[in-house]
Amino acid sequence: MTEPHPPATAFTRFPDKAVPDRAELDRLLEDVYLAHVAVDTPGGVVAMPTAIARDGDRVIIHGSTGSRWMRSLAAGARTSVTVTALDAIVVARSSFENSFHYRSAVLFGAFTPLEGVAKVAAVDTLVDRIVPGRSLEVRTPTKRELAATLVLALQIETWTLKVSDRWPTDLAEDVAGDAWAGILPLEATVGEPVPAPDLRTGVPLPASVHALTRPVGRPLRNRRRR
Amino acid sequence: MTEPHPPATAFTRFPDKAVPDRAELDRLLEDVYLAHVAVDTPGGVVAMPTAIARDGDRVIIHGSTGSRWMRSLAAGARTSVTVTALDAIVVARSSFENSFHYRSAVLFGAFTPLEGVAKVAAVDTLVDRIVPGRSLEVRTPTKRELAATLVLALQIETWTLKVSDRWPTDLAEDVAGDAWAGILPLEATVGEPVPAPDLRTGVPLPASVHALTRPVGRPLRNRRRR
Repeated sequence: MTEPHPPATAFTRFPDKAVPDRAELDRLLEDVYLAHVAVDTPGGVVAMPTAIARDGDRVIIHGSTGSRWMRSLAAGARTSVTVTALDAIVVARSSFENSFHYRSAVLFGAFTPLEGVAKVAAVDTLVDRIVPGRSLEVRTPTKRELAATLVLALQIETWTLKVSDRWPTDLAEDVAGDAWAGILPLEATVGEPVPAPDLRTGVPLPASVHALTRPVGRPLRNRRRR
Repeated sequence: MTEPHPPATAFTRFPDKAVPDRAELDRLLEDVYLAHVAVDTPGGVVAMPTAIARDGDRVIIHGSTGSRWMRSLAAGARTSVTVTALDAIVVARSSFENSFHYRSAVLFGAFTPLEGVAKVAAVDTLVDRIVPGRSLEVRTPTKRELAATLVLALQIETWTLKVSDRWPTDLAEDVAGDAWAGILPLEATVGEPVPAPDLRTGVPLPASVHALTRPVGRPLRNRRRR
C-alpha cells in the first residue's frame, strides 16, 4: 500500500496534527540527516541513531557488519524509524503553551539487505544525501569495504507524520496580559569547510563541498509555511 | 550507581568511541532540545521524540495525560532515552570513510512521575531549558494545566556515550590521491524572533528571548574540541 496506515498504538494524541501527506513526508526526509531506529534488544528497547536517505519509495541506512542491531535488522526484525525536525521554538504567554514547531514521522516495517549493484548504488545515495555530488568525486568502494558494510532498505508503506506549525494558542486572559508571544526559528547551516591536517598541498575544494557551503552556510531545512 | 554501566546489548561496535565521562554527557544534554524515548507498544517498538532537560542527576520529560506512551512510562515501563547531536560532516577521500562528528548517549531505566511542588519546579526547568529565564516572565501553571500534564523524571545512572570527533582516516593511497578531505561544521542557531499575530501593541521583547537571539543568532552547541 502507498497510503499511510498508522498503527493504532502510535500517536494517539493530537490527531489534528496528523498529516497524511507523502510530499510533506518527503520534505521532512530531505531536511534531516538523522533517524532513530527502534530496536528490541535483550537489554531493552533502544532508539539507535543513524544516517538516513530516501531513494524513491524506500529509505536506506547503513552500518557495520559487526553491529549487532544492524545484523538483527538485516535478518528481518520488525522495527520503526523515527525522523524528527525541530523548526522553531514557540514562546507562549504561559509555560503550558510553550512548545516547538516540529515535524516527526515514524515509518514501520522491516529492512531488507541490499546486495551487488543495488548496494553500491545505495552507498552513493547515502553519500550524496549528505554532500550532493560527492560520490562522483571519490573512488568506488572496494569489495572489502562493501563486505564490511550492511546496507538496508525499508519500503515507505506504513507511516505516520505529525506537523506542529501553529502560533501560540494562549488563553484569552493571557493574550490580554503583559507577556510576549511569538516564534523563534531554529536554523541549521553548514559552516566553513576545515581541511584535514593531512590534506595534500594544492588539492582544491571540490565542487560538491563548495556548493554545500557557499557563501557562509546554506539553510539545511525547508522553511515551514505558516 | 553513578558510573556508566552499559548494557551488553548497546553499542557493541567501536568501543574506542565510548566515553565514560559524565561531564561530556552533561555537555551533550546542554546542546540538545530533543530526545527519542524507546517504547514498546503493541504495534512494535517506537522511538518517540520529546523535549528533554537535565536537572542534576536526572532528566525530565513531559507530555499529555492523554498520551498512551507517556502513561505507560508513568506506570514504570522500562525504557531508554537517546540523545544525539550531529556536530559536523566528515568529508573523506572515499565513500566508505565519510561520516559525521556526532555525540550520542543512551540512558537506561524507568521514569517516575513528579507531583506537587516537584512537578511545578520541573515544568520551570523544562521551560527554562529552551528559553533560559522564561519561567520567571510568565504566570505559574494552573491546577487544570498541571492535571493535564505528566511530568516524568529518570535518574542518570545507567548510560552509554559515544563521541565521534576525528579527522577522516583515509587509506594511504587515498591520501596520496586527488580527493579533498576535511570537516564541515554543522551549526544550529536561534533566528530572529517573529511576534505572534495577536501580540498586543506595546508588549516588548522579553529579556529571555532577547538574550537567546542577540545579535543574529547564538550557536546552540558547545563546539567540539579536536
